[in-house]
Amino acid sequence: KIDAQRLWDSLMAMAEIGATPKGGVKRLTLTEVDRQGRDRFAGWCAELGLTLRVDSIGNMFARRAGRDPARLPVLLGSHLDSQPSGGKFDGALGVIAGLEVMRSLHDLGIETEAPIELVNWTDEEGSRFGHSLMGSGVWAGVYGQEKVFGLRDVDGVSVRQALDAIGYHGPHPAAPFPADAYFELHIEQGPILEAEGKQIGIVTGAQAQVWWDAVLIGQDSHAGTTPPSTRRDALLGAARVIELVDRMMRARGEEGRGTVGFLQVVPNSRNVIPGEVRFSVEFRHPDTEEIERLAADFPRLAQGIADELRLGLTLTELFRFPHQPFDPGCVALVRQAAARLGLPAREMVSGAGHDAVYVARHVPTAMIFTPCKDGLSHNEAESILPEEAAAGCQVLFEAVVARANR
Amino acid sequence: KIDAQRLWDSLMAMAEIGATPKGGVKRLTLTEVDRQGRDRFAGWCAELGLTLRVDSIGNMFARRAGRDPARLPVLLGSHLDSQPSGGKFDGALGVIAGLEVMRSLHDLGIETEAPIELVNWTDEEGSRFGHSLMGSGVWAGVYGQEKVFGLRDVDGVSVRQALDAIGYHGPHPAAPFPADAYFELHIEQGPILEAEGKQIGIVTGAQAQVWWDAVLIGQDSHAGTTPPSTRRDALLGAARVIELVDRMMRARGEEGRGTVGFLQVVPNSRNVIPGEVRFSVEFRHPDTEEIERLAADFPRLAQGIADELRLGLTLTELFRFPHQPFDPGCVALVRQAAARLGLPAREMVSGAGHDAVYVARHVPTAMIFTPCKDGLSHNEAESILPEEAAAGCQVLFEAVVARANR
Ligand SMILES: NC(=O)NCCC(=O)O
Ligand SMILES: NC(=O)NCCC(=O)O
Repeated sequence: KIDAQRLWDSLMAMAEIGATPKGGVKRLTLTEVDRQGRDRFAGWCAELGLTLRVDSIGNMFARRAGRDPARLPVLLGSHLDSQPSGGKFDGALGVIAGLEVMRSLHDLGIETEAPIELVNWTDEEGSRFGHSLMGSGVWAGVYGQEKVFGLRDVDGVSVRQALDAIGYHGPHPAAPFPADAYFELHIEQGPILEAEGKQIGIVTGAQAQVWWDAVLIGQDSHAGTTPPSTRRDALLGAARVIELVDRMMRARGEEGRGTVGFLQVVPNSRNVIPGEVRFSVEFRHPDTEEIERLAADFPRLAQGIADELRLGLTLTELFRFPHQPFDPGCVALVRQAAARLGLPAREMVSGAGHDAVYVARHVPTAMIFTPCKDGLSHNEAESILPEEAAAGCQVLFEAVVARANR
Repeated sequence: KIDAQRLWDSLMAMAEIGATPKGGVKRLTLTEVDRQGRDRFAGWCAELGLTLRVDSIGNMFARRAGRDPARLPVLLGSHLDSQPSGGKFDGALGVIAGLEVMRSLHDLGIETEAPIELVNWTDEEGSRFGHSLMGSGVWAGVYGQEKVFGLRDVDGVSVRQALDAIGYHGPHPAAPFPADAYFELHIEQGPILEAEGKQIGIVTGAQAQVWWDAVLIGQDSHAGTTPPSTRRDALLGAARVIELVDRMMRARGEEGRGTVGFLQVVPNSRNVIPGEVRFSVEFRHPDTEEIERLAADFPRLAQGIADELRLGLTLTELFRFPHQPFDPGCVALVRQAAARLGLPAREMVSGAGHDAVYVARHVPTAMIFTPCKDGLSHNEAESILPEEAAAGCQVLFEAVVARANR
């Protein structure tokens, strides 16, 4: 029913915005490039006669009226922001497939019972301001808006300044309004569907996470004159913490996840023993209790490393969330759609965080995954097939329409 | 004989150029701030009637004529560039004290037999372009000029572009001209003189060094979905290499030096397993053979780490130099001056690299050290007393004049 070619063409058109030489996308949240992506999306929505609302954290909601004004809207969507060297599909697939659902409804002249709202959440990636699922987090009340407005990127630009600069500090309050359901289509970003030859992941929930900002403070001093006994090398400390994170991950087997993805050295000069290192630490696990254990153990073990090297350590927990199960009713609609369409599918837990995690605290939610090549994501080489996008979009269409017409 | 107050005032005037909020200096080589420092220095030289030559790598030579036109010049000097968060005295002391020597000769109406030339060497620190002692290295023929012109900073600006931009790409060839001697006054940048209550370090040589650029290549991938078994984490590799450098240093006891001072992560995003890390590695030791051993062992051991983690490793040796002994005759002049002035002194080997190391390959050379607080350098808190600067300057004066009049 959906138009696979139109879907693909729009995905490619969006991928032109922030295209990188290596075939990926750099569309960091709340930048000028993000504005261009948002503007193009808003233009497409306007062509369909959708009504656009922008809230105070920049989340965009494009509404298609339903037949029954008393019914709560069915939401669908994802995010248009990307990693600094991201792929074309992480986030964009869910938004553009949502647009294709709207276009198909329009072409087919279908009037649903409930209204349908297509959402582009602000800053899902968390790369720029350190908090993933930021827009949905503010919307869901997980983060206070004033706190989030004050977050700054490495250049010192605040969320508030960035929102104003691109003109997406909208008039509507960022707060959870009543909705009937939320469906998010996303690439799996992992290897499971591809390995098993499945077309559709029926996502039953998302794993637990905890993220920190870490700062180690030693003393800048001369690389040639400072003897081993008096060195206070913050980068040596960071190296040991990186090893610790890896060890704690591996102690949990193949389900463990522990990553230091961001690290900055000060003053970062070859012949200066580093006096300061700022870095990120995150752990993930399907089991909330494992995250609770990691959240208790890691700060203590990292402090031990700092003490041994006579370094100061500041650990700031940015966020922690438990395993988030999705709504059985919504998950069932995804399962039924895949079955009806004859698409090989399996149930799975999401390894990545998604806006659906926070939305699910207020609205019955489910997610649909599609495979991606080699399970690779957060990489410019991220790749999917047009048929895979179309299959995911068709499942999304069926689930949303079924829910809106129930 | 020298004017201690004038010396201090000029040191403080130079320290205004590139002054940092924490009381240090950021006067990175060949930047606009470096140009301001060079211009002020050139102005001071012009006031004394010195004749300035600038060579093609930006080294500045300010000449005071001697009585005997047949005599080779006696050189003195150091560098005006600084670390990104450097101190007021590293380098500047030797140049400004040299200026004070010139001023005192002028005030006292002294005509030396040999001419005297005061030098400001380009890019001693090596922080910006990765090669310390760069200007003196080109002058001494250690580096080809064309190769050095092509070196680029992290922003992609080449040495050649930077030289042109600040107008210090001079007409004179950067090549070793015949000279009678070279004397360099510098702060010790280490703890020995202060610990022993000595005023003067009689520097008999400088320790051996080897520096590399290292690049580890893994694969960017998603922190939440990539299982431990398929990760190729370049930052984990860098962490292990940092540990290796520290271990190899400590295996050499208190004389060992091994440092990773610079490190850059790509893409440097919290939820992306790093696919690329670029960093510096350097080792130093008073004994050349230890550096030869380190230069042989380190690449092999680092490669082992890379192989184990399925990472690509590229190691580029930037430079390697053996222990450089200074000239016994010049060293004796320093020893005699300190003794004549009644200043407590001791002989020592320099832990830092200095332009004197490369100059010594062509010209009889010695260095004079003065204490610095807590042995701290390459730190904005670097600090010395006015009396210490004056004592070092007086020894420099005596040694230079004795050599020029011998
Ligand atoms: N889907 C996705 O890549 N989200 C980014 C947030 C995360 O790190 O899980
Ligand atoms: N004197 C000094 O700090 N030189 C910088 C080059 C080095 O690292 O030794």
